[in-house]
This record gives sequence, structure tokens and C-alpha cells, in this order.
Amino acid sequence: MTQIAELLAANRNYAAARAAVAGAHPGRHLAIVTCMDARIDTFAVLGLHLGDAHVIRNAGGRVTLDVQRSLALSCHVLGVDTVVVMQHTKCGLLGVTDLELHDLTGADLGFLGFDDHSAALHEDIEVLTNTPYLHPLKVIAGFVYEVDTGAITDVVRWERPE
Amino acid sequence: MTQIAELLAANRNYAAARAAVAGAHPGRHLAIVTCMDARIDTFAVLGLHLGDAHVIRNAGGRVTLDVQRSLALSCHVLGVDTVVVMQHTKCGLLGVTDLELHDLTGADLGFLGFDDHSAALHEDIEVLTNTPYLHPLKVIAGFVYEVDTGAITDVVRWERPE
Repeated sequence: MTQIAELLAANRNYAAARAAVAGAHPGRHLAIVTCMDARIDTFAVLGLHLGDAHVIRNAGGRVTLDVQRSLALSCHVLGVDTVVVMQHTKCGLLGVTDLELHDLTGADLGFLGFDDHSAALHEDIEVLTNTPYLHPLKVIAGFVYEVDTGAITDVVRWERPE
Repeated sequence: MTQIAELLAANRNYAAARAAVAGAHPGRHLAIVTCMDARIDTFAVLGLHLGDAHVIRNAGGRVTLDVQRSLALSCHVLGVDTVVVMQHTKCGLLGVTDLELHDLTGADLGFLGFDDHSAALHEDIEVLTNTPYLHPLKVIAGFVYEVDTGAITDVVRWERPE
């Protein structure tokens, strides 16, 4: 069976067995921003159920313009007021430069590598809190997920002043 | 318990019970690009297990520069050769314009709304196949996930010519 055929066969089993679906509004008014890393099953890691939260993922779980675009819709159209930005240990973007990644990939991009989880989380959360159209956000947390143990460290917490 | 405390408590249960973790290379050489929608549990929908695939998510599951950045790393650093772009029915970006979304969100952005799954999937897959630094990709599929039934429709398939 090809890779794609295998995915479609797994989906037939899933569709036959799945629970009823909630509406489009995330039930916990929550969005998770995290890395694409294959070792992160976002719903399982955070005890989320179908319909609970938006999940936004890219390389590194960094706050890019695409993440801001997504969160603009989360906040204003779908009632999200809380965001968790979750980086993880052993991330491929830790301690690498754009020059090194250009040599590896041939792509001339800003790859958003970083040296320190706490500094990068503070920086990304600052981008969110300084984005005028994201004013409906009330709480933002910055987590680091330890890929070897599955445990989270709670690194940054921001709440909008009353 | 606050929202954030609840996530951390769920994670303690998860970390205590989870299986051993594979390495960073996706075991199935696979990346999934899909929407942030709360009704999509990507691993479950496609029968994926921890370590199998990169998961990249944004509003609409559209192929943006941020997705290209992520896939450059998937392909060149972590051995991915197959991508699935999975849109879904009842997506908030179906049939909406930037002007309408600007009025709702206050954000002056290209929101990447679309009118037709097939046209949008073809367009996004063409972006991927025309990105020179994504040449390691061998297979790309375009799926539509039906949020009410959980079933997938297999809409587009591309394979790199030998």
C-alpha cells in the first residue's frame, strides 16, 4: 500500500468510529501555537478534546505573520481569548543560524532560529501583545515541552491589564 | 482551576503515561499541512502515531511563505519527501473576502480566503512544486476533510516525474 493509500485507509476507520463534532468555535476559547515536530501530539499533550482549541503549527512554533493572520480570525471570528505558545526541547531551530540553514536547504529565508527558549518565548509573546488587532487576547502563556519526558515547563505568563 | 492550570494538570497525566519517543526524523517521511480548525485532530484523522509526521497548521491550511520555510527544513534536514495538504468543509475562509475579514478583525492582511477547495488545493500544490528549494518532495496529495463525517476526499495527487 502506498503512503497516501495508507492514510486514506486509516481515515476510513477513523470516520467510522469518531465521536460527534462540536461547532467551529473552540470550546475552551483557546489557541495553541506550537512546532511542527513529529514528536508532539498537541491534543494528547495538553489533554484537549476535539473542538476545544485551534492548533497552529510551524517550524519552531514561532510567531510569524501567518500566525498573526490565523489568530486574528481565532480572536475576532471564533471567540478565542487565550493563547499558549509551546516550544520544545531538541528543536531543530535551537542554536542554528540562517546561513547554516541556507547551506543545508538552498533557501534564502529568515528561518527564525533561536538560542534560548525563554528569550524567544518572551519575544514572541511581545509580538502578540503588541499587535493591535489581537486586542481580544486576555491570557498568553509560554511553555516548553520536554520531548523526552512529555512534561511541560511553564515559562512565561501574560495577562492583559484590566 | 484556570484554563492554563488545567492544561498543565492534563500534561502531568500525559507525561506519566506516554510511550517512548522516536527521533526527530518523521518515521513516515511525511508532512501534513492543514487548518487550525478545532475539529481536526490530525494524528487521529490520518491514523498517525507519535513520530510519524510533521504537522503544519494555519488558518485554512493554506501554503504560505511560513509553510514553505517549515517544509524547507522538513525536506532538507529531516528527510520528508511526501506532503499532504488537507483543507476541510465548513472552513471559515470559504467564500469570504479580505474586505469582509478586515471589517471583522481590524487587520489589513491577505487572509487567503477561497471559493473552491479543488481550485485552492491545485493553486497551493503548484506553489509547492514550483518552489526550487522544495525539490526533495516526491509526492504531494490534496485532501478535503469533511468535518461532519470525519471522512476525507482525495482531490489532487502530484508525483514528481522521474
